[in-house]
Amino acid sequence: MIRTEETICAPATSGGGAIAVIRISGSQSIHICDKIFFPSDKRIKFTEQKGYTIVLGEIRSGEEIIDDVLVSVFRAPHSYTGENAIEISCHASPYIQQKILELLIKNGAVPAQPGEFTQRAFLNGKMDLSQAEAVADLIASESFAAHKIAVNQMRGTFSDEIRILRADLLHFASLIELELDFGEEDVEFADRQKLREIVTKVLSIAKKLTSSFSLGNAIKNGVPVAITGKSNTGKSTLLNYLLKEEKAIVSEIPGTTRDVIEDTLVLEGIKYRFFDTAGLRETGDIIENLGIKKTLEKISLASVILLVADVNEGIQVLNEVLNNLRQQIAGKGKKLIILINKIDTNIYGNHALILNRIILQDNESLLFISAKTGEGIDELKSKLGRAIGRDQLLTESVILTNIRHYNSLLQVSESLERVREGLDNQLPEDLIAIDIRQAIHYLGEITGEITTDEILDNIFKNFCIGK
Amino acid sequence: MIRTEETICAPATSGGGAIAVIRISGSQSIHICDKIFFPSDKRIKFTEQKGYTIVLGEIRSGEEIIDDVLVSVFRAPHSYTGENAIEISCHASPYIQQKILELLIKNGAVPAQPGEFTQRAFLNGKMDLSQAEAVADLIASESFAAHKIAVNQMRGTFSDEIRILRADLLHFASLIELELDFGEEDVEFADRQKLREIVTKVLSIAKKLTSSFSLGNAIKNGVPVAITGKSNTGKSTLLNYLLKEEKAIVSEIPGTTRDVIEDTLVLEGIKYRFFDTAGLRETGDIIENLGIKKTLEKISLASVILLVADVNEGIQVLNEVLNNLRQQIAGKGKKLIILINKIDTNIYGNHALILNRIILQDNESLLFISAKTGEGIDELKSKLGRAIGRDQLLTESVILTNIRHYNSLLQVSESLERVREGLDNQLPEDLIAIDIRQAIHYLGEITGEITTDEILDNIFKNFCIGK
Repeated sequence: MIRTEETICAPATSGGGAIAVIRISGSQSIHICDKIFFPSDKRIKFTEQKGYTIVLGEIRSGEEIIDDVLVSVFRAPHSYTGENAIEISCHASPYIQQKILELLIKNGAVPAQPGEFTQRAFLNGKMDLSQAEAVADLIASESFAAHKIAVNQMRGTFSDEIRILRADLLHFASLIELELDFGEEDVEFADRQKLREIVTKVLSIAKKLTSSFSLGNAIKNGVPVAITGKSNTGKSTLLNYLLKEEKAIVSEIPGTTRDVIEDTLVLEGIKYRFFDTAGLRETGDIIENLGIKKTLEKISLASVILLVADVNEGIQVLNEVLNNLRQQIAGKGKKLIILINKIDTNIYGNHALILNRIILQDNESLLFISAKTGEGIDELKSKLGRAIGRDQLLTESVILTNIRHYNSLLQVSESLERVREGLDNQLPEDLIAIDIRQAIHYLGEITGEITTDEILDNIFKNFCIGK
Repeated sequence: MIRTEETICAPATSGGGAIAVIRISGSQSIHICDKIFFPSDKRIKFTEQKGYTIVLGEIRSGEEIIDDVLVSVFRAPHSYTGENAIEISCHASPYIQQKILELLIKNGAVPAQPGEFTQRAFLNGKMDLSQAEAVADLIASESFAAHKIAVNQMRGTFSDEIRILRADLLHFASLIELELDFGEEDVEFADRQKLREIVTKVLSIAKKLTSSFSLGNAIKNGVPVAITGKSNTGKSTLLNYLLKEEKAIVSEIPGTTRDVIEDTLVLEGIKYRFFDTAGLRETGDIIENLGIKKTLEKISLASVILLVADVNEGIQVLNEVLNNLRQQIAGKGKKLIILINKIDTNIYGNHALILNRIILQDNESLLFISAKTGEGIDELKSKLGRAIGRDQLLTESVILTNIRHYNSLLQVSESLERVREGLDNQLPEDLIAIDIRQAIHYLGEITGEITTDEILDNIFKNFCIGK
């Protein structure tokens, strides 16, 4: 249910910390705040305060002083939501936050729904729908890559591309409909050849975008990586080495340590989710147990598989393990990185021998490492990045991460395929017009030029409160 | 180590949420921010921006756009720290926060120590030491009571009281020292009778304050309450009923649920810590097992004990349990509330009989409840409040919660006792002067008029980062 009359309020920060911010938006924001906020400088008339200014003062509940706060004032349309808006910066005590919210509600505000501030920004034309969705992605971004994609999307790079495609199609749709208006006079305003070119162009862009979704989705949610191999080859040591390096980086920002617990790691700007192949670890023998359902499931979920082997073990053993694994992943588009571990203990110096006897396939690469000393780990990180197509991230300005956009673009492609077929088969313009309209409709859904309450509800309900 | 030259930076919020605030303070704040912040309105010259204003713009790292942010500007001395200060309000992504902090540090800021912003506020005369300490208490406050005490202290009610006492003593100290200057001339500037009155007055206030510490400490850290009784009397049902009511209140503020896990509850504005008497629960029979060390320990830590009994069980059983418990807590100043539970199932209607046969002692009260239906629970809350002296909270403006202040005031009392003794025994003024000086010294320590780096370090190291 979309509402726009009410003045909404919610905490915009969460958890501990020194300060907390409570956000209010709506026509009555300043008026409601004025009832509970008393500026320290008695000369200040709060309701006349200009936008983009801050006022120091007290929040009071009758006689009770709740807190010394800073109040930021924004006036419509120059605010995030496009409405009058207030941000109260208070001490981060649960009691104080609770009290301030209670006071706001008592004076006429209502608690905000998840994403309701951003929803209002969209409804008031401050951003389009795909930009609004990017706000949630931006807040959730934990890596360089996820951040980069979200920033681009938030700044409208993606929306602009979609809007240009839509404008091209709209132009032709209107010409074709003009022809329909003239009915039986058999005039042809739309150049069929040109239309075919446009449709082909839009189709190729739509397909490029949908094909970027698997990378985009992996970047957004973390690239699934399975670490496998016989027991005692150093799988845990490797994961711990990576985690230890990472820990030092993230520890300063509270709330990020959960990743470590989940074995989620950001390496060179990409987030990876490392799967625990506990089944293998427990039973010890990869050859005997690769058939175990659980382990297979995990490997089937992974985009990249790290096969860890001990440099000191026989090449025959390694080849057996490798061939077994190859059978499991054949034709599934997975990348395999073979890690010959423990080179710090390699008394035989048999690197060349191994390289000679292991014949790599196209999706495979091999690396000598020591998970103990860290030798080769930097190269492993680069190899991981290359395995998932990190370069694409640097060269492409738009990578699809949102499944809603993905589904809309699939529909766009389907409609345009029909248009192209129709043109090839010289179908009447009224049939072609229907499919063009459909493609235009789905493009419009992405940016929110065409939308329904249901679509909006679905998008914003996944936002956090206060955004 | 106290440093004041550096410009410091730290996240001021923590955890998730929609937005995060990064705080910068020091002479170079605006200058450093100017290097990484680009206002959307190109006409704005950021370094000339006035205090108490907000600027919209981008944080950039070279070509990379890090985030769209709001930047609040404060100019010395009109800021929390009294220095130039900046607050960057960004999207609450761990990556973005990390990046902004890195950029600030790269451009000359240093990471702030815990409490360093408040330490600077103290050093720059924006607040005294006891007010600075109240800031940490305020942030931690989770209940009406803890909040009220912290607000009073932060606003200087306590400091003012201490400063008046100190001024009174200082006046006399100077008169006595004047006498000492005149050496053998045997003049008497200080009226001994008046001095005795002042000392007695300060002593009585100091003692009143120190005696309020046990209440203050309980309020700040939570009043320890043990729930005990035979198994199946409904102890868990009671706790769950209280928790469920509370949960509904706190669930809107993120980060407060940990209390629920710890069985910490705020009832009528007071925080209680409920001890799990698992030992009793496990073994089932309070009479047989009250001797168990663990349970006894928990009961010995509690200020209030709730003894839960089943209304349907024999009065003899209840009296046995009660007498056993009484032996354990005799003379220890604990309050005991006997809860006759399950009155919703009371087929015998034996309330009057129970009241007749249980003879209450001074520190005891008795209540009929149903932990299932909630009957009598409101009265239980009131009784808990009365048991810990909640009224004192409403009538007294200053209640001691800080152990540092408590220790200082104990020293003040000791010194003044010696002064009074000295006056009684007509000791020479130079000896009396030493003790007066000592009392003055300890009073000055509370407000920070007298302080050392060590004291400051000890105080601020317990603050959170960003405050």
